[in-house]
Amino acid sequence: MSKDKQFVTEITPQGEDFSRWYIDVIKKAELMDYSPVRGCIVFRPDGYEIWEHIQAEMDRRFKETGHRNAYFPLLIPESFFQKEKDHIEGFNPELPWVTEAAGEKLEERLAIRPTSETMFGHMYSKWIKSYRDLPVLINQWANVVRWEKRTLPFIRTTEFLWQEGHTAHETEVEAREETMKMLELYRSFLEEYLAIPVITGQKTPSERFAGAVDTFSIEAMMKDGKAVQAGTSHYLGTKFAEAFEIQYLSRENTQEYVHTTSWGTTTRLIGSLIMVHGDDRGLALPPKVAPTQVIMVPIGPPKTREAVVGRTDELFVELKKAGVRVKVDDRSDVSPGWKFNEYEMRGVPVRLELGPRDMENGVCVLVSRITGEKKIVQQDNLIEEVKAMLEQVHQEMLDRAKQFMSDHFYSVDNLEEMKMRMEESRGFTLAGWCGTVECERKVKEETGATSRNIPLEPAETKETCIVCGEASKHTVVFARAY
Amino acid sequence: MSKDKQFVTEITPQGEDFSRWYIDVIKKAELMDYSPVRGCIVFRPDGYEIWEHIQAEMDRRFKETGHRNAYFPLLIPESFFQKEKDHIEGFNPELPWVTEAAGEKLEERLAIRPTSETMFGHMYSKWIKSYRDLPVLINQWANVVRWEKRTLPFIRTTEFLWQEGHTAHETEVEAREETMKMLELYRSFLEEYLAIPVITGQKTPSERFAGAVDTFSIEAMMKDGKAVQAGTSHYLGTKFAEAFEIQYLSRENTQEYVHTTSWGTTTRLIGSLIMVHGDDRGLALPPKVAPTQVIMVPIGPPKTREAVVGRTDELFVELKKAGVRVKVDDRSDVSPGWKFNEYEMRGVPVRLELGPRDMENGVCVLVSRITGEKKIVQQDNLIEEVKAMLEQVHQEMLDRAKQFMSDHFYSVDNLEEMKMRMEESRGFTLAGWCGTVECERKVKEETGATSRNIPLEPAETKETCIVCGEASKHTVVFARAY
Repeated sequence: MSKDKQFVTEITPQGEDFSRWYIDVIKKAELMDYSPVRGCIVFRPDGYEIWEHIQAEMDRRFKETGHRNAYFPLLIPESFFQKEKDHIEGFNPELPWVTEAAGEKLEERLAIRPTSETMFGHMYSKWIKSYRDLPVLINQWANVVRWEKRTLPFIRTTEFLWQEGHTAHETEVEAREETMKMLELYRSFLEEYLAIPVITGQKTPSERFAGAVDTFSIEAMMKDGKAVQAGTSHYLGTKFAEAFEIQYLSRENTQEYVHTTSWGTTTRLIGSLIMVHGDDRGLALPPKVAPTQVIMVPIGPPKTREAVVGRTDELFVELKKAGVRVKVDDRSDVSPGWKFNEYEMRGVPVRLELGPRDMENGVCVLVSRITGEKKIVQQDNLIEEVKAMLEQVHQEMLDRAKQFMSDHFYSVDNLEEMKMRMEESRGFTLAGWCGTVECERKVKEETGATSRNIPLEPAETKETCIVCGEASKHTVVFARAY
Repeated sequence: MSKDKQFVTEITPQGEDFSRWYIDVIKKAELMDYSPVRGCIVFRPDGYEIWEHIQAEMDRRFKETGHRNAYFPLLIPESFFQKEKDHIEGFNPELPWVTEAAGEKLEERLAIRPTSETMFGHMYSKWIKSYRDLPVLINQWANVVRWEKRTLPFIRTTEFLWQEGHTAHETEVEAREETMKMLELYRSFLEEYLAIPVITGQKTPSERFAGAVDTFSIEAMMKDGKAVQAGTSHYLGTKFAEAFEIQYLSRENTQEYVHTTSWGTTTRLIGSLIMVHGDDRGLALPPKVAPTQVIMVPIGPPKTREAVVGRTDELFVELKKAGVRVKVDDRSDVSPGWKFNEYEMRGVPVRLELGPRDMENGVCVLVSRITGEKKIVQQDNLIEEVKAMLEQVHQEMLDRAKQFMSDHFYSVDNLEEMKMRMEESRGFTLAGWCGTVECERKVKEETGATSRNIPLEPAETKETCIVCGEASKHTVVFARAY
């Protein structure tokens, strides 16, 4: 078996077993490794760097919208969780507890934070005195731990990395505006940066965050048709303010509870972009977050090798200076074909080939990871050409993902149809819902799909409930989900 | 009592009670707040932003020297600590343990990481197979927890933020080179970015990191003369490689243990820069990490107010565009004098004043937080002038800190003299040491000073041990330390 052949067969085709494809790809591309701790992964440099690029841009957008970062304690006293009834009910089953430290039993157990509403609530009650202190707009980049039953690298891990925004406002109107602003920030970030189209919408009551008055989400479609909830934004009303006594002196000189919000995205974004864009050749990384954006491969016979490698190195320096994340693979002991496969598997968005004939002509070849399109470009104009090609690859990825989502988005009128879609073609289904928990549960039992959200802008309005046939209250996206 | 007077008296003078001064300043400037969890603080936005600037520049320097970031699990199985005897002895007394999760008792206790040599060791043993895989140069930005008996905000907290570098190399020579390279990176970073001069040197065996063959540190002098160990770099030999079976196939086709290093700096850098630069007026923040670098205060009578504020805002936009972190305080209900005090207390490096006469003349006034020097500059040239002033303030801070350190650095020949220095003038003392643990312990008992390090470049060489009078083996810096 040739080296090239052997290479390709190491990745399970998506059509054969999507889950195995996913694990094959992320391990082979060295994005992660399993750790010795249940459900925890190690984010290896190429995996972590994707997160660094996500962080940098998202952080920039948070700051641009007036938020500042802070850092709150990892450990949360048990009594804090008791203060908001829905919150403890939701999170209690997943909490890990520190019960001993420095050789002694603790007086009160400390939970490792699964989220920090309670700790922020406690501190906000000390800091907020007057309407002049509002709004408070703080974000935190942190690790959190949730003892999940079923785990999957990046998508659902016991420990994960995330950002959690926590804001406090004078009025419901302001707090709701913040909730929607951050939802839209997430939506546009995913589209513009990760090339992932999403459905934005409101969660049904049963899918709300524990302690929220209203939860909104962005839902992305993976290539197996399943949904990933890629970010959430919550309007918490005055529930946490009441639990933690966050009151302020209003403009009318009365004591009022603040209205709070929280919103978060996690390292599951890494898993999402892999399952949205990857294919049987391996990863396909969106150019804006790819650790390596351009791989340069010098080619040609041994006698021209030195000159070609020399010229490649010159172009490398130019691209690097221009801020392109670029690498050269000039190894002579592996074939160009092997390298092409290798970097396609690793998801590098653009390949640059340079051979002796190209050198003579002052050109080189750029190849898109997505379409395989080859473009001959002038070396004199390389920086602009590479940047345009990276932009083009981003657009190709977004177009394909949109096309895939639209091809797998079904309007359905009865449970049988939804069930068929879930089993045969996979994807999202749009259906009417009367608003009762019973009908929502029935959908899940019959089809395996859960309500993802009530889209803010549904493609159409469904008039009757898919289960009971009564007048529908909402038009809902149902799908199987990670 | 006038508002201005009242303001100043809220901060305890350094000479009266340095510890109270420290707490007064960091609370009043809203850098931190105490949290409900023992020994844990909340890093408020102005405190956390200092860390963000430290991170950004240090991270840039790490990457420039070939390191990449990754992320390893927070929780470490108990059995891992047992593998390296010195390591567990050193850290066991400080470990917090997770013993329950999701309602069940865990089979094996999990420690919250106090440092990650063991987890890196375990993973490196899976990843490193051949000399071709070396060196491995990974850094991690993370939170760690150590159950300390005495805590002090930023300087020693139960949970703190840090970076920990972990590298693996073929040879001792290479690993030792890395150890010294990172020590030098820390030294130059502190000087160039935080305006903190340090003593770089080797730790005595009793002060080594638990599990290290050799530990090096940078030691900074606070304004009360006490030392802060501001960063450490360890050569770990093959100790962790042997404990975790990190072997590689050498160029000679033999199985060898890798040589590892680790190195770290923490959020105690924030505490250090406060105690190095602050004064009775409050904080003094190094310009390169100050959340606000320039505070603009429009002044003058009400009738010219609108015009002056308008022009201030125009200049604000110019400075902001040029990348200066700048703010305007145009409140009309507090006096300029009050504002001057306020931003001096908050440590803003440069104040910009603009009055009606300045407007007529096309000038404004820049004031240094350190010297109080006022400089009239042309508005046309403002960006360059402000940048030069920020550079000047950095240099003033560094010069003063160097001067302070040199004024409080004593060469001593007997214990009485060292004791006197520790009690009267405070500072660092340079003394000979025979190399025995007994004499080192005696110094501590008699003077309260501990060995800080054996400077790489001592000001002089001391010939006899300060305790026993025998020939000295090392010239050591002794000081009381945080």
